[in-house]
Order: sequence, then structure tokens, then C-alpha cells
Amino acid sequence: MRFTPENKDLPEKWYNVIPDLEFSLSPAMGASGYPLGQHDMNSLSPNPIIEQELERKKRDVPIPPELRNLYAEWRPTPLFRAERLEKKLETPARLFYKYEGGSPSGSYDLNTAMAQAYYASHDGAEHIITATGDGEWGVSLAIACNHFGIKCRVYMVRSSYDEQVYGRYIMEILGADVVSSPSEDTSTGRKVLSSDPKAPGSLGTAISEAFEEAMSRNDATFAWGTVMNHVILHQTLIGLEAQQQLRRAGFQPEICIGAVAGGSGFGGLVFPLYREIQHGMRAIAVETAAAPSLSKGHYAYDYVDTERLGPMLQMYTLGHSYIPPGIRAGGMRYHGISPLVSALYREKLMEAKLYTQRQALEAGIMFARSEGLVPSPESSYTIRAVIDQAVACKEKKERKNILFLLNTNSNLDTSTFKDFLEGAVEDKYLLEDQVVAAINNLPKM
Amino acid sequence: MRFTPENKDLPEKWYNVIPDLEFSLSPAMGASGYPLGQHDMNSLSPNPIIEQELERKKRDVPIPPELRNLYAEWRPTPLFRAERLEKKLETPARLFYKYEGGSPSGSYDLNTAMAQAYYASHDGAEHIITATGDGEWGVSLAIACNHFGIKCRVYMVRSSYDEQVYGRYIMEILGADVVSSPSEDTSTGRKVLSSDPKAPGSLGTAISEAFEEAMSRNDATFAWGTVMNHVILHQTLIGLEAQQQLRRAGFQPEICIGAVAGGSGFGGLVFPLYREIQHGMRAIAVETAAAPSLSKGHYAYDYVDTERLGPMLQMYTLGHSYIPPGIRAGGMRYHGISPLVSALYREKLMEAKLYTQRQALEAGIMFARSEGLVPSPESSYTIRAVIDQAVACKEKKERKNILFLLNTNSNLDTSTFKDFLEGAVEDKYLLEDQVVAAINNLPKM
Repeated sequence: MRFTPENKDLPEKWYNVIPDLEFSLSPAMGASGYPLGQHDMNSLSPNPIIEQELERKKRDVPIPPELRNLYAEWRPTPLFRAERLEKKLETPARLFYKYEGGSPSGSYDLNTAMAQAYYASHDGAEHIITATGDGEWGVSLAIACNHFGIKCRVYMVRSSYDEQVYGRYIMEILGADVVSSPSEDTSTGRKVLSSDPKAPGSLGTAISEAFEEAMSRNDATFAWGTVMNHVILHQTLIGLEAQQQLRRAGFQPEICIGAVAGGSGFGGLVFPLYREIQHGMRAIAVETAAAPSLSKGHYAYDYVDTERLGPMLQMYTLGHSYIPPGIRAGGMRYHGISPLVSALYREKLMEAKLYTQRQALEAGIMFARSEGLVPSPESSYTIRAVIDQAVACKEKKERKNILFLLNTNSNLDTSTFKDFLEGAVEDKYLLEDQVVAAINNLPKM
Repeated sequence: MRFTPENKDLPEKWYNVIPDLEFSLSPAMGASGYPLGQHDMNSLSPNPIIEQELERKKRDVPIPPELRNLYAEWRPTPLFRAERLEKKLETPARLFYKYEGGSPSGSYDLNTAMAQAYYASHDGAEHIITATGDGEWGVSLAIACNHFGIKCRVYMVRSSYDEQVYGRYIMEILGADVVSSPSEDTSTGRKVLSSDPKAPGSLGTAISEAFEEAMSRNDATFAWGTVMNHVILHQTLIGLEAQQQLRRAGFQPEICIGAVAGGSGFGGLVFPLYREIQHGMRAIAVETAAAPSLSKGHYAYDYVDTERLGPMLQMYTLGHSYIPPGIRAGGMRYHGISPLVSALYREKLMEAKLYTQRQALEAGIMFARSEGLVPSPESSYTIRAVIDQAVACKEKKERKNILFLLNTNSNLDTSTFKDFLEGAVEDKYLLEDQVVAAINNLPKM
């Protein structure tokens, strides 16, 4: 059942959670070892993005009208109640999902891609450079760049470039310049290739390459797909809309669930409900067993990228040198989690659950067959946690309202489910020894 | 720019164009050689579907409330104005598109799939059997069947089964039973395989196989993906909504454009605008050069399927034995066009244009880059015609309102554009000699 979105649900302001936090946050650190400031970020980002990244006082950040008009091309997104899934599970819980997979790119990434392209365009940038795993983020950025007449260049993790080809195809159809990372185009890439010409790449390396190129060019900016404060700020559209839509339907969320890769989708859903958290709402982040930064990581300052070109953030991390085993939801292979999400977890304001990819995919198929929407592998982790909570509600005879985020559709990766049905997907777990080594390798502060 | 859909845009009744026609229609013919009646169709379809197929008097056909609630999960679909494309083309024309690619299946096919599954379910059917090319139709039917707890079995053209695998994957993820056609499961399939074990299959053969199985089972019905009157009836949701949405925005359509495979999407868009046609609106059907039934076919009674198990329809046809060359938009390889669309064309109430697949794909990429939505190869034919009309408006300095149908997104076929960009897609044309032979092979009436 869909709760029809109404125009007024589309916010006029993003929500910055920081002023509402009851604890203090450590600053990000620049390469200099001093707190990250405007001067560290000038070579990477336009001014309004830097201001949003560093903003600690303003709760409400106005959305420029031109940008809001673009959001209105696909937002507000619908809120659904998964009544057929409830029935199948025989749960008394009510399952509500905010569906971002109907955006032009098929994912929530377009929320921040459009904002970053807007600000880059007003800053006079002619190129935006970024890094992507399977391509959901890159596809969104390619669409946003076209809207502003900006050229888009994407360093794509080589294993995805070679195997998860649909993301690459769509970026190329959209006119983006897609480079297999590690590449010969940067000194970072050449360094990696010289030690291993067949290196499969990692998101950490691809980010380093994109940083290097963006920093060396005057006509280009870098765009962040997740992790950073401003990205979550843009993604709060999700939670702000969901809150309005649930309220109008007469329901109060009691459990809120989302998968975490870098944490921007989860933060975007949950932060606008921060008051509800203070009043007892549970917030559950869902991680992959192959890279569970919250559940098994270390809370420390760490680099955002493998080659340590970017800032250091205080976050739950498995170490920037940890390379998780190859799992299907490639975006979830990142070593850290947004500092804001990390801080909430540290303060015990939220929980984390971890699942293997087979547990997730099984749940994704159950959802597809009952609700008629095929989710992405990443969204399937969310669904798995939702199903477990719904079953717990059944056992305890509790009629809870569960709100979750279906952030991406299956466009770019259908073969994972097919391989799973054919028994060709194996579970992958944290490589504990490698994490120990990577944690030893954390920057000394 | 999106015109936000409003709940009231979702019709309470489908529109049957037949009572409004100013000319008479020839009946469909059953295998007996007599006009098709209830008794011929009992073994294939539930009663309400048969009534809808044969209805000639009632203009408005009520949508059952349970079904309308399901439609409300993704309808009304949005109407967009392609302002960025207008700007790129420097055309004074206004380009409006009704976007059906945001449905759960990614295509307009779900409009009739849901209706047919609804009626089959109320008729007690436990299985629905159908035929599909690339899989858009099959995916929609699989979703609809799940909503009603019906098992879905799909004969899929072998060349698509082997090559356009994403449609098959999604049907299987949704739990449908997908059979490569020609198959060993039917006498039709065995006959084709015995003369050519490597036969690539065709939609005509797959329909014959599905007919054969549905007719031989008491617990199963057949579902039609296009061509038939009742399918177009269900698809009139598209035109009814678009009419309301355009009217509210203050515009009157002056040219209306849609690609035709079997004709149901085009009919669904255009028939509700029949009065506008009578008042001078141009309606343009867009065909592929490989199978242009309207432009180069014969107006005659012909079978809907290769093995002549189904009814004969009076329509523009290339002959049921014509097998068009392999083009990418597999659904457009059908030999005939809906009798209703054919009749309008015969009466000169509409036009037809034909394009090669390279002409279409080039336009699809231009649209993707300006509008940010990647269309299906079939929708790209529509876009090509729209661009040509928009350019003509520029030359004539005419500010026309052009309404077109974007019926399907690119989910199931991204590689076609990629192959096109790499120069690996060749134009294919009508095989004229084979059409001459197929026309000679038409049934003698």
C-alpha cells in the first residue's frame, strides 16, 4: 500500500543534526594534522559544500529554489506499507518503507549528487571527479552533471568495472568518462599497479585517485558519495519526508532500520528522527559480515582513503588498509562509517546488526516476491533486519511500527540474485587477522 | 519538469473507444471460421476478460475497487515536460511525456498484467501462462501473479532467454517458471525443434506454445501482453491520466506519439484522445524498419500466432509466418498490430513513421543525457519521432504541444546502448522477399 506523496512533503530545508546533539563531536583533521578547515578543502569542494561540512550551529539549511525544483522531478518519494510481507510473516508489526529506488538513477544517491553538481556549477566547475564501486553513485552523479552541463569523470573500482558492468554502461550512456581504478592516470594508480599489475582495486584507492586528480586541476571539484556530514545533510530529505508522511498516516515510528555502507542513507533516514530516538525509538544500522565497521571496528581517527590523501575522520573503522573480501553489495566494502553515525553509535543512541550476504539475499527475494519490487543487494541487508524484527514482534506479540529505507532498486545488479538462486553465492566474513594489521596501521594522533 | 500527479488523476473507469468510432469494425474470427465468441475463448480467458474483449457498446468500463487500490501503488504515473531536451533542440515545441518506466516492473505492461491476474484470480485460476520476448511483459505478469498467489509460467523466446538474460533473471527472482521456447513441453515446441533443433524461437511460436498449454489445463488461463482489445482497454489508464494532467497544466495535445510493437501502449495513450483526433490532433505510431506492419503490411485477417492455434484478427500484418530479423527491441518483432490501431490507420485517423534501430538508439542517448532517464530501446523509437517532429516545429516556427509515451525504462536492456556506442549495432530492414511469401501464406477467408 502506497501513501500518496504530497508536494508539501518535499522539505524547503535540510536538517543538520549536530546542533541537537547532547554530546560534543571531534573535528575532522586535515592532512596537516590540524582540524580540517576551509583552506584544506578549497582544492576539493566549492565553498557552500565546505560550509555545510563544517556547519555546527545552524539546524536548518535552506535548499536553493533552483535545486528544490530539480528535486521535485522525483521527490517527494513514496512511503509504502509492506502489507503483503506483514501477512506472509504473520507479524503484528507494521512495516513501512521509504522507497528511493524510483528516482531517475534508481537510487537515493541522486539526492546529494544533484546538490553537489548544483554547487559545483555555481562555483564555475567544468568537471566533477569522483570514485564509485558498483556504480550507483556514479550513475547518479552522471545524471546530475548533465543537468548542469558539467563533465563527469568517475574512477570505478576495477573489479566492478570488469564484472558489474551495468553501472559502467549506464554511466557511459549518460556521457560520463569512466576510468578503471587503479589506473595509469594518477601517481596513486601507477604506484598500486607497479606493485600489482592485476590489482582488483578498492574504493579506498579509487577515492585516492579521484582526490589526486581533483586537487591537481583548477577546473574540477571532487564529489563525495557518502561518509561526510554534507552528504548526510542532503540525504535528510529522506527522513524529513518519511516523518511527514508517517505522521499524516497517523503512525509513530518505533524502530527505524537502514543498511550502512558509508552511512549516508542511514543517517539521512534516522537523523531527522533524532527527537524520537531521545524518546525511545530504536535505530538499527545493518552491516555486512564482511566489513562490519560499527560492530567490530575500532573508534579512532582514520583516513578516508587508502593512499591517505584525504582528511582523517574520527569514526568506527576497520583500518584504511583493510581490504574486505569481495561481496556483491560492493558499496558496503568501505572500511569506515560516517563520523556522525559513528558518534551516535558510540553514545549508544543506536544499535548495529550484522548479516552475511546469503542471509540478506534470501530476505531480498522474499521481499521481491511479496511486495513486487526487486531490491538491490544492499537494500536486502536492511530487509533481513526488518524481517527479524518483525518476527521478534510476533513472538512478543508487540505491534511495533517499523520504518525502513529501501534506498536502491536492482537495476545495476540482477545477476547477484540469480547466482544466489543457483547456489553460486558464498558467505564472506571479516578477515580478522587483516583487520588487526590494519588497526595497527591507524594514524598515530 | 514534473507535473505532480494527483490521486484523482487515477481513473475509476477504463475507456473503450469502440462505441465512439464512426466506422464499423470487423469481428475477430475463431478457429472455427466464425466470429470469435465466448465459447472460443472459454479455455483461454476468464469471463470478464472475454466480455471486455467483445464489448462494443459500453464506453466506460468500471475498474474493480480492489484492482484500483493496487493500481494506486504506482499510479497515477507522472507527466513530465522535457524542457532540457527542448532547449538542446532549440525547438519552440513543448515536449510532454507520460512516464510509465517508474512502475514496480519498470514498464507499462503492469497495467494489464495486474488486471488480468485479478480476473484470473477471481475465476479460480491457479496458473497463468504467457509468452514473452525480452521479458518486460513476463516480469510484469510475474509481479501481478505474486500479488494474487497465482503461479506464473512464461514461454520466453529462446534467443532472448539465452541473450537478454536480465528479464529472465528477474522473472526467476520473482518465482516465475520460465521456459525457453521452442520447448519440449508442447507439441508445438517439439514440432519446431524436430525440424530445427537450434531454432532461435519467435514470439509467434512462444504464443502458440502458451496457448497449447493453457487450453489443455483446467487450472490455468492465458494472459495476453498486447494486440487484443481488452489489453488496450486496460492501458487506457495512460491516456486518461495524461489527458487530465495536461489539461490541469493548461495544455492541449496537438501531436501524440508512441512506438508500436503490438499496439497496446500506443492505443492506451491515444484512444482516450480520440475526440482530439477528430478535432485535428495528429497521432503518430512509430515502427521499426525491421517489422513495419502498418507502413508496409497488408490489411487482412491473419493469425496471432505462428502455429495458428489462436484467433484470426483483421489487422495490418506482415504475415504470421514472417520472422523479422533480430533487432534489439525484441517486442517490436511481432508480425501484426492491434485490430483497433489497424482500423484507425486504415481510416487515416493516424500516421505511421518508421526508423532503423540506430536512428532510434541515437535519439535514446540524446534523451538520456538531457533528461536523465535512460529509456528502453523500444521507447527510443518514440523519442526519435518526437525529435524529428520537434525539429520540424523549429523549421516551421510552430509552437506545437507534443505528447509522447515513455513506456519502459532501461532495466532489462542496458547492453544495447553500450553496443551501439561501440559501433556494434547494425541497422536491420524488412526482409521483403520473406514478407511476400508470408503474405501469400495468409489465411484465405
